[in-house]
Amino acid sequence: MPRKPVIAVVGSGSDIEPAISNARELGRLIAENGWILISGGRDAGVMRAADEGAKEIEGSLTVGILPDRDGDVSPAVDVAIVTDTGQARNNIIGLSADIVIACGVDGAGTASEVSLAIKNGKPVILVGASEEARRFFKQIGKDRVYFADSPREAISIANQLLS
Amino acid sequence: MPRKPVIAVVGSGSDIEPAISNARELGRLIAENGWILISGGRDAGVMRAADEGAKEIEGSLTVGILPDRDGDVSPAVDVAIVTDTGQARNNIIGLSADIVIACGVDGAGTASEVSLAIKNGKPVILVGASEEARRFFKQIGKDRVYFADSPREAISIANQLLS
Amino acid sequence: MPRKPVIAVVGSGSDIEPAISNARELGRLIAENGWILISGGRDAGVMRAADEGAKEIEGSLTVGILPDRDGDVSPAVDVAIVTDTGQARNNIIGLSADIVIACGVDGAGTASEVSLAIKNGKPVILVGASEEARRFFKQIGKDRVYFADSPREAISIANQLLS
Amino acid sequence: MPRKPVIAVVGSGSDIEPAISNARELGRLIAENGWILISGGRDAGVMRAADEGAKEIEGSLTVGILPDRDGDVSPAVDVAIVTDTGQARNNIIGLSADIVIACGVDGAGTASEVSLAIKNGKPVILVGASEEARRFFKQIGKDRVYFADSPREAISIANQLLS
Repeated sequence: MPRKPVIAVVGSGSDIEPAISNARELGRLIAENGWILISGGRDAGVMRAADEGAKEIEGSLTVGILPDRDGDVSPAVDVAIVTDTGQARNNIIGLSADIVIACGVDGAGTASEVSLAIKNGKPVILVGASEEARRFFKQIGKDRVYFADSPREAISIANQLLS
Repeated sequence: MPRKPVIAVVGSGSDIEPAISNARELGRLIAENGWILISGGRDAGVMRAADEGAKEIEGSLTVGILPDRDGDVSPAVDVAIVTDTGQARNNIIGLSADIVIACGVDGAGTASEVSLAIKNGKPVILVGASEEARRFFKQIGKDRVYFADSPREAISIANQLLS
Repeated sequence: MPRKPVIAVVGSGSDIEPAISNARELGRLIAENGWILISGGRDAGVMRAADEGAKEIEGSLTVGILPDRDGDVSPAVDVAIVTDTGQARNNIIGLSADIVIACGVDGAGTASEVSLAIKNGKPVILVGASEEARRFFKQIGKDRVYFADSPREAISIANQLLS
Repeated sequence: MPRKPVIAVVGSGSDIEPAISNARELGRLIAENGWILISGGRDAGVMRAADEGAKEIEGSLTVGILPDRDGDVSPAVDVAIVTDTGQARNNIIGLSADIVIACGVDGAGTASEVSLAIKNGKPVILVGASEEARRFFKQIGKDRVYFADSPREAISIANQLLS
């Protein structure tokens, strides 16, 4: 039996809309598709919202890749991987995912997650990104970068990439 | 609902007995207890044996913490975490586990996993370790290090540590 | 005696102009100021050019933070730090530098270096960045991000930041 | 001009004799040989003693590989590499050194440094190690592990290994 697809949802640790609502819906849709959700694992922002969305679905599996050994962990994380590598854990998120979906690129942490995923050859889907983020990541990521206006559209793109 | 306990099984990437048989039985027993199994994830030695043992049990969950992005992954791994940090991934294994069980300490990789787990304050159970390994790790690990003569004894110790 | 300032020069591993010429001049100017140069250490692109520029100055010190254990190392690197953490070494570059200077942001690797430096609270100076890069990093980095049109201007900004 | 040899001195962060005196003498001898000293970089125990010993010699160069971004740094460190990878930085120390010299193996951190160095194929010299440590590391490290009774003997072995 092949391994289930692993989809990462990344984004800000702050509660910024519409990133939070999008993340929650993405988590739910990823779980409904039977995929494994990977995130930064903290009890904050997009990470928490995505994991909580996934846990609304029975049988879902959420894996959190945590930066620090003493940090907060979302209760919605099923498996907590404690890297103790600080922001370098952003590289592990992308390497472990088949596809990375970013809910907004509102901060430098998310920008690093998107950049590292592209650098490592992973497809990245930006949902609700600013015009500045879209232009920049199109420039450096070329055909590895996709844009979606909604979680449903992002999942539709992911489905095509996985098939 | 609290997170399920996470138990790491570590050991050589070579097929050395009785480490391999012990690892397979440990994997099975960990899964029977409803715990999550974490390992080095490669398709070799103790890692493969532990993961295969766990997958004999329905509903088991195996997480592999892989050293390299291009390395082999055991088909018995459910979730592959690709760290691309080489042997530094040995630190992540211990940090992510509640308890580390070593099937023999036959090589330097396993010795580093045991040492790092002790350093990070995790309890370590050595199964079938050499006299030299037992004496050394008792000296540096003191009451964090336990010894077991069989997988069943190791699981019994783990049960006490978790309760 | 306080430690000497450490300045990182980051950029593409490809030979893109004017990034290469800028990197060489930056390396030379950093060394002339008596600062330590840190780079990605590989024998390629901006890394090599910056290190070679610095080694034109007697008494210079160049430190390379290398991604892989088997990779190429520039002969112009005095001290090779072998991280074996792949692209996660980009985080170590920023954390170890007082200031990060990017010669162009032409690829995802450099974008991650700039993002991680900002995330870790370090000042970043972009030299010769595209309009898209300038707008994006101004948006996410705010007053931590500086822009320079030439190596000399970048060094002038660095001097103010260090004083 | 080839890069200067890089020698790591590792050991406890506590002030244990004779490890501290040995580390100080090793630092001095390494510097007198014109080699670069690498250590864990903290302002404690063997790390501090080795770096201080080296800085007694004019023209010496000391590089500290630090575990945490907010930790203490020895004033005797010339170049501070901030890894923010916790104990995983022990892997970087060994990978970046031509030879690793351990002043006692009194704790789990040092045991991991020695183990990781062996695993990565580096020669390791144990100075003043306990009988238990000598037996264990001889067992797992075989001909990669050397024993010395004094700093001078360790430096003599290092000289042979480098020639």
